[in-house]
Amino acid sequence: MKLENILIVDPVDGEYTGSINIEDEEIVDIRRLECTPKAIVMPGFVDPHTHGQRGIDTMSAKPRDFEVWAELNFQQGVTSFLPTTVSSSFEALRKVLFNLQELPLSIVGVHLEGPFINPEKKGAQNPDFIYPFDERLESVLKNPVKLITAAPEIDGFKKLLELSESRKIKVSIGHSSATYKAMKTAFESGADRITHFPNALVPIHHRELGGMGSGLYLDFKLELIADGVHLAPEFVDLVYRIKGPDKIMLVTDSISAAGLEDGIYDLGGLDVEVRDGKCRLARDGSIAGSSLLFNNAVKNFKKFTGCNLMELSKVSSYNSIRELGIEKLGRIARGYFANLVVLDESLTVLKTFFKGIEVYKRF
Amino acid sequence: MKLENILIVDPVDGEYTGSINIEDEEIVDIRRLECTPKAIVMPGFVDPHTHGQRGIDTMSAKPRDFEVWAELNFQQGVTSFLPTTVSSSFEALRKVLFNLQELPLSIVGVHLEGPFINPEKKGAQNPDFIYPFDERLESVLKNPVKLITAAPEIDGFKKLLELSESRKIKVSIGHSSATYKAMKTAFESGADRITHFPNALVPIHHRELGGMGSGLYLDFKLELIADGVHLAPEFVDLVYRIKGPDKIMLVTDSISAAGLEDGIYDLGGLDVEVRDGKCRLARDGSIAGSSLLFNNAVKNFKKFTGCNLMELSKVSSYNSIRELGIEKLGRIARGYFANLVVLDESLTVLKTFFKGIEVYKRF
Repeated sequence: MKLENILIVDPVDGEYTGSINIEDEEIVDIRRLECTPKAIVMPGFVDPHTHGQRGIDTMSAKPRDFEVWAELNFQQGVTSFLPTTVSSSFEALRKVLFNLQELPLSIVGVHLEGPFINPEKKGAQNPDFIYPFDERLESVLKNPVKLITAAPEIDGFKKLLELSESRKIKVSIGHSSATYKAMKTAFESGADRITHFPNALVPIHHRELGGMGSGLYLDFKLELIADGVHLAPEFVDLVYRIKGPDKIMLVTDSISAAGLEDGIYDLGGLDVEVRDGKCRLARDGSIAGSSLLFNNAVKNFKKFTGCNLMELSKVSSYNSIRELGIEKLGRIARGYFANLVVLDESLTVLKTFFKGIEVYKRF
Repeated sequence: MKLENILIVDPVDGEYTGSINIEDEEIVDIRRLECTPKAIVMPGFVDPHTHGQRGIDTMSAKPRDFEVWAELNFQQGVTSFLPTTVSSSFEALRKVLFNLQELPLSIVGVHLEGPFINPEKKGAQNPDFIYPFDERLESVLKNPVKLITAAPEIDGFKKLLELSESRKIKVSIGHSSATYKAMKTAFESGADRITHFPNALVPIHHRELGGMGSGLYLDFKLELIADGVHLAPEFVDLVYRIKGPDKIMLVTDSISAAGLEDGIYDLGGLDVEVRDGKCRLARDGSIAGSSLLFNNAVKNFKKFTGCNLMELSKVSSYNSIRELGIEKLGRIARGYFANLVVLDESLTVLKTFFKGIEVYKRF
């Protein structure tokens, strides 16, 4: 199969016009050709942090639901994602892992958000299921977990980090009261990633950088929820200017309400009220995940920052893929899997290809 | 007179070795010559925000005290500075201006810090003397005032800005509760400078940039107190990385206790307790100015940021001079006044020249 007269956007080679030749699952050839492109083609999007969509929730999904979710995500151009848990009983977490022993389609692993976080910064996490880490709890640190959000100040964090590393699980700092000193120590120990920055972190103060300042100052990679609700557009732009395109990873942090109408939804046993697309805990009005869909995250980030398409391919795909250590994804280059998203000028998804197969077409 | 075998540091031409020829008040010739320099020569330092030093206080100083202060400042390499007032009665402010009708030596004007500020962000300013602006108060907006710190949200700010502009007085935003929107409006109206950033401003939040975020995000020029007390060293470095060397101006914000022993001092009628060099209001422990001397500000900034000497000459001299619109100062170039500071490798002041005359020598 061949995609012709397109603008190819690669995070390494940049933007150029030409054609892509796909055989079986892979890109076998790319030709550079002067032409007026009919569409933009980027590496398929990657969402490392998503709790659900259109009524599906990681915590309650059955194996078939995960397949449906993956199919829904193709509409968003997402060709790799990590269903994300919330702080829950170990039984509930193990059930999720059991249901995902066979990863369907574009699901590349599970992101455990908690339970090893700081209850002071619980956000929309259920405090009944937040724990320090000890080795007896290691049964959740196993395949298909690829990413875990934890707070460096909890008891047992060092052990958690060691175990995770040995099992090729990436640790992301989040829901944490860590000060600059603790953030620096964690960074130097290898926890070089921050979950939904700077939500549920200590704000920056000019005499104590806190989690927010540490994320900006040290060489952390940052998840950003570019919905215009969690973060002001100018904050997203400021972070972009400070960190540059190589240290940002777009995430939706979407909950089951995403793509549905306003109403009351469940998140880890807590009621979430969705009004005008904004998700808040009924309990106290805390922001509780988003109703953001990935294609909008991409459009928003471009709008908020004015970045170019090559940079956009980094924050929407390449950076997350590299960090998770996944081979043959995240680029448009010979030998890579043909996970591709075809977009119009306004960055609306027209088509999605997953391993060379057209899995979504807009009209 | 000739300075030979020196490392010349100019904010525009950079660093090079050679010699400087001085006749009368001016630099008449510069020669580039390969040599092993015996000292570093930079443009004389500029302190646009200083309330006092060694027992001298702007509010109580007599004309002769200002001369002594200028001489003391030569020891710090400071060849231009603005004695800075605090919020006070108009009578008291007018007295300061009267005493400085004839500007002695290196005093280039007066900085009025208040009284047109926001009492919510008074910091160490006396709330009894904080006012909104109306035209009846314009009698303080006159020579030798060169700079005024005001809050954009006070009544009459627009008028204050217009009047100041017509009188060539620079307006600096400070002691303000302004949100992003108000900061942006003020910036666009021409108030493009911030006093002792980000002290006495609204902290940054990811959904509302406040004064701190606005200072980082918009193209404001920022005063920084690099004493390691007002601002953590890593905060100074973060600001430097974000803003670059062209938007930062070092200030001491020093009070009369600077250069003296710990004890109780006065600032605008309020008691300030100085302990271990840290100045705090006896009333509530608020930070109340600094005991920083300019040469230490320069050393600290270099240490905190690792900037090069050319960049250091910008933040310690050139940026402030340019902004105040003063001619023939801030550079080491032909035709400029020979206001120079001679430093050793550790950036300790060895000699100071003011208009070609050696006004300080260390040993």
